[in-house]
Amino acid sequence: MSDERAKKNIMEYETVALDDVNDALVILDQTKLPGKAELVSLHTGEEIWEAIYLLKVRGAPAIGVAAAFGIYLLAKRIQTQDYDVFYHEFCKQKEYLNSARPTAVNLSWALNRMERICTENSRLPVTEIKKKLKEEAVALKEEDIQVCKAIGEYGLTLVKPGDGILTHCNAGQLATCRYGTATAPIYLGQERGYHFRVFADETRPLLQGARLTAYELYASGVDVTLICDNMSGAVMRNGWINAVFVGCDRVAANGDVANKIGTSVVAAVAQRYHVPVYVCAPTSTIDLHTATGADIMIEQRPTHEVTDMWYEKPMAPEGVKVYNPAFDVTDHDLIAGIVTEYGIARAPYTESLREIFVKNNKIF
Amino acid sequence: MSDERAKKNIMEYETVALDDVNDALVILDQTKLPGKAELVSLHTGEEIWEAIYLLKVRGAPAIGVAAAFGIYLLAKRIQTQDYDVFYHEFCKQKEYLNSARPTAVNLSWALNRMERICTENSRLPVTEIKKKLKEEAVALKEEDIQVCKAIGEYGLTLVKPGDGILTHCNAGQLATCRYGTATAPIYLGQERGYHFRVFADETRPLLQGARLTAYELYASGVDVTLICDNMSGAVMRNGWINAVFVGCDRVAANGDVANKIGTSVVAAVAQRYHVPVYVCAPTSTIDLHTATGADIMIEQRPTHEVTDMWYEKPMAPEGVKVYNPAFDVTDHDLIAGIVTEYGIARAPYTESLREIFVKNNKIF
Repeated sequence: MSDERAKKNIMEYETVALDDVNDALVILDQTKLPGKAELVSLHTGEEIWEAIYLLKVRGAPAIGVAAAFGIYLLAKRIQTQDYDVFYHEFCKQKEYLNSARPTAVNLSWALNRMERICTENSRLPVTEIKKKLKEEAVALKEEDIQVCKAIGEYGLTLVKPGDGILTHCNAGQLATCRYGTATAPIYLGQERGYHFRVFADETRPLLQGARLTAYELYASGVDVTLICDNMSGAVMRNGWINAVFVGCDRVAANGDVANKIGTSVVAAVAQRYHVPVYVCAPTSTIDLHTATGADIMIEQRPTHEVTDMWYEKPMAPEGVKVYNPAFDVTDHDLIAGIVTEYGIARAPYTESLREIFVKNNKIF
Repeated sequence: MSDERAKKNIMEYETVALDDVNDALVILDQTKLPGKAELVSLHTGEEIWEAIYLLKVRGAPAIGVAAAFGIYLLAKRIQTQDYDVFYHEFCKQKEYLNSARPTAVNLSWALNRMERICTENSRLPVTEIKKKLKEEAVALKEEDIQVCKAIGEYGLTLVKPGDGILTHCNAGQLATCRYGTATAPIYLGQERGYHFRVFADETRPLLQGARLTAYELYASGVDVTLICDNMSGAVMRNGWINAVFVGCDRVAANGDVANKIGTSVVAAVAQRYHVPVYVCAPTSTIDLHTATGADIMIEQRPTHEVTDMWYEKPMAPEGVKVYNPAFDVTDHDLIAGIVTEYGIARAPYTESLREIFVKNNKIF
């Protein structure tokens, strides 16, 4: 792929978009990247659920926006003028979409925001509620872009021009609507001539780091080097990394972080080599109702993702046991800071995270 | 693959064997596993060099034995009765084989042992020297089996029945002539009803853990679970691991260890979760002439091993930079013990390793 073609690929498409005329949620199918940039139109609840479950759309913020557009489209189709009938059906569809993936809190967060539009406007005609649902979903997407940009600005204060940055999985443009979370400081730094040297963990088993992060950074002209997940020790021992930036799927009230499997490994290695780990977290991923990491449900995924999903020949003996958790929990004491759209929370997180919610009138 | 078939596969073949009648080194081609158990006969120096470089035969001890048989076969073919001519040609072939891989010390260790047979017997007719070279290579293989067994016995004293053991890469039967090094305590424990629960890191990029370790342990009826390299944090945080056993390619005089890329990551994670890391090291892998890990040359391997070697579709953007070191260095302070065939060395290693050599009259 030439530089020009890669750039075109990544700039041409939005991760998640609403096609209201055709009653469709349009997503860039991320399971096809980096080979093919393909847009898919999703119409039914089942199609949307499956796209989330199969990671065609993935990344906590992008899942939230997809769910908001999705529930709007499903609500729009409910054929009734009776609020109670409408609301009952809305909740049924909401619960169904919410069941697609358990770990990222943004899915339920976005769906709850949409539900609130119904309950707060229950006296309005159903047609009006539907309009408001659309407005809310569109606003949610716009907010996502602003939130990522703010995270980028705060994140940028933590690094210097020329720094080496390691990132794990994809908390990039493709995981959000623009900028990404963990990549937001990188993209803003790029605009300002910071010349970061970025190292992207490939992120087994589904290779979001190789297929998505390396792809989008390379296409944007960032100096990016792809490594296997087990090379973080080597690059940190070489002194090449000044900071780790990762995204997250859910932050507990005490600052424990559930993120893509392997994040706790990067964090332990970073501790060994005295490299600070920063978690980029829109407040939508902070769940003050979850006390600690032990209370976060960790999604287990199928064996074949490890043994043969991406391979043309068998890569493990048939029938061997496999453990395949999609996420792990990184203990709060391994985290140097949690970068939100309102600023950087520092330990003790039980206080600093709560303070961010209170100060900024966020519902928790 | 049925249990029976897998067992047959692994028991049927030797990792490295001499076919003196047909002037061939016979190896089990490990790049074809676990799909196919295929024996390959190697005749020329180029074929042997390539088999080592391409990891058809791999694992520090197995490389040593293959090199010993290999140099014997090449020496056997030298058409002269003049010792000086013979020795000159021998050294040329030796240097050539030695250049196949730089990190594992066993390659040069085995070749040096073979060279010593020439120099110590320089007054004998060349025909006699050739006979002695064969005897030495055969002895070297037999010793490897005994050494691995002894390592297994010492290693077994470090664990209890029912323990969870994590291993990285393949330091198994397939890396040696029998038992393996890191797997020797596992196989001996298996014979004695210890019922270990073993977790095998898949070991990117070449997946020796998935293709070889999971394969040979599963075939032997060991309770083995395959994980991705980035899952060590999750399994240790779950409390499932009591000890880590790994092999090594070179141990420096201060106890720093070069082993398969990712070993230093496992060690940092183990430190975080207070799990002891044991390095299983035949004295042939201990190099007292190398002061520290910083003095060990680390082999860099091609980009395509990470981006597409095992894949049917591109897994990374074309042209992206890749860093692909085959090994990393684990600092001695992360290592709880180095298990040799003469006993377990403990910190400070500068003293304990030297003591093992002196006490057992090993050349260093």
